[in-house]
Amino acid sequence: MGQNWRVISAEEVYRNDRELIVSREEVQLPDGRVITDFYQVQLPSHVTIYATTGEGEVACLRQYKHGPRKVCLTLPGGLIDAGEDPAEAAKRELLEETGLSSNQWILLGTYTLGGNQGIATSHLFRAACAEEARTPASGDLEDMTLEFLSPERVLTEMELGSFPIISHAAAIALANLSNKTSS
Amino acid sequence: MGQNWRVISAEEVYRNDRELIVSREEVQLPDGRVITDFYQVQLPSHVTIYATTGEGEVACLRQYKHGPRKVCLTLPGGLIDAGEDPAEAAKRELLEETGLSSNQWILLGTYTLGGNQGIATSHLFRAACAEEARTPASGDLEDMTLEFLSPERVLTEMELGSFPIISHAAAIALANLSNKTSS
Repeated sequence: MGQNWRVISAEEVYRNDRELIVSREEVQLPDGRVITDFYQVQLPSHVTIYATTGEGEVACLRQYKHGPRKVCLTLPGGLIDAGEDPAEAAKRELLEETGLSSNQWILLGTYTLGGNQGIATSHLFRAACAEEARTPASGDLEDMTLEFLSPERVLTEMELGSFPIISHAAAIALANLSNKTSS
Repeated sequence: MGQNWRVISAEEVYRNDRELIVSREEVQLPDGRVITDFYQVQLPSHVTIYATTGEGEVACLRQYKHGPRKVCLTLPGGLIDAGEDPAEAAKRELLEETGLSSNQWILLGTYTLGGNQGIATSHLFRAACAEEARTPASGDLEDMTLEFLSPERVLTEMELGSFPIISHAAAIALANLSNKTSS
């Protein structure tokens, strides 16, 4: 059923000032074989939030994202600051990007982005009964518009490919799944 | 609501023989601002398969994965070969890793791994009524064990964190969500 690999050595082969690091690891498999070039990629970890208002509408953002290279729908979210707790980052990003605040938070799950390279940790949250607390001011490069969509519309838009980023699709599906199994 | 960014120039700043490429792009935002160092990461795209047998059990693999750095549960899946169609890659990976074959395939969704850096495309599939067609032989570095779990057990294991990779969680949640909404 598998045992852990042993990291014999790790060498940083690329790093930039945007916290992107590539490392080449020498690893030993449980059967004794040694792989001399198993690469790891490291990027800052992030939070994604499925937030609903008291009326049950989902806070979505319409914006250009350079990863999928198109104007699309996203959930609120962003990078975790150095030393910041993921739950605090989720509250901060929701407030910055949507102006909303909630005191009903659930962690939907914590996931690794890359099965082989690691890459980053994605913390998915659900926030209920979110209320307007201030004017949004994300400070992000992206020019974004806040839209409140019904959960049904969000699922339809997801099926149509309007939410192209995997952490957002995972959060939407997990939030709707927990709604259904708990009802 | 946002417009596309314009890529002024792109320079490859790191590349290795495992198809990992890092590029630094100079991009112009819709308001005219120019960002000189927006980084893109490129890794091979992959497929993930939520496959159920005629009895409704889900084909899972227990194996060590170096990204999350632990022995865990995964769904079958793997990298798309050069020039290979994602649907063909899904059939090949399911057969190689589990020995199963199916003629009932649904695309659950196609997602971008990194909202900012792109990174890779994750193609999520559902295969129903899968049947044993041959002996598994993945050719992967990982020593894996095939386990058939009930859908309820898969959801419980996911909640417990036993499926740590985001594409697997997304496929599990999307497959169960489509089951619920269609029933």
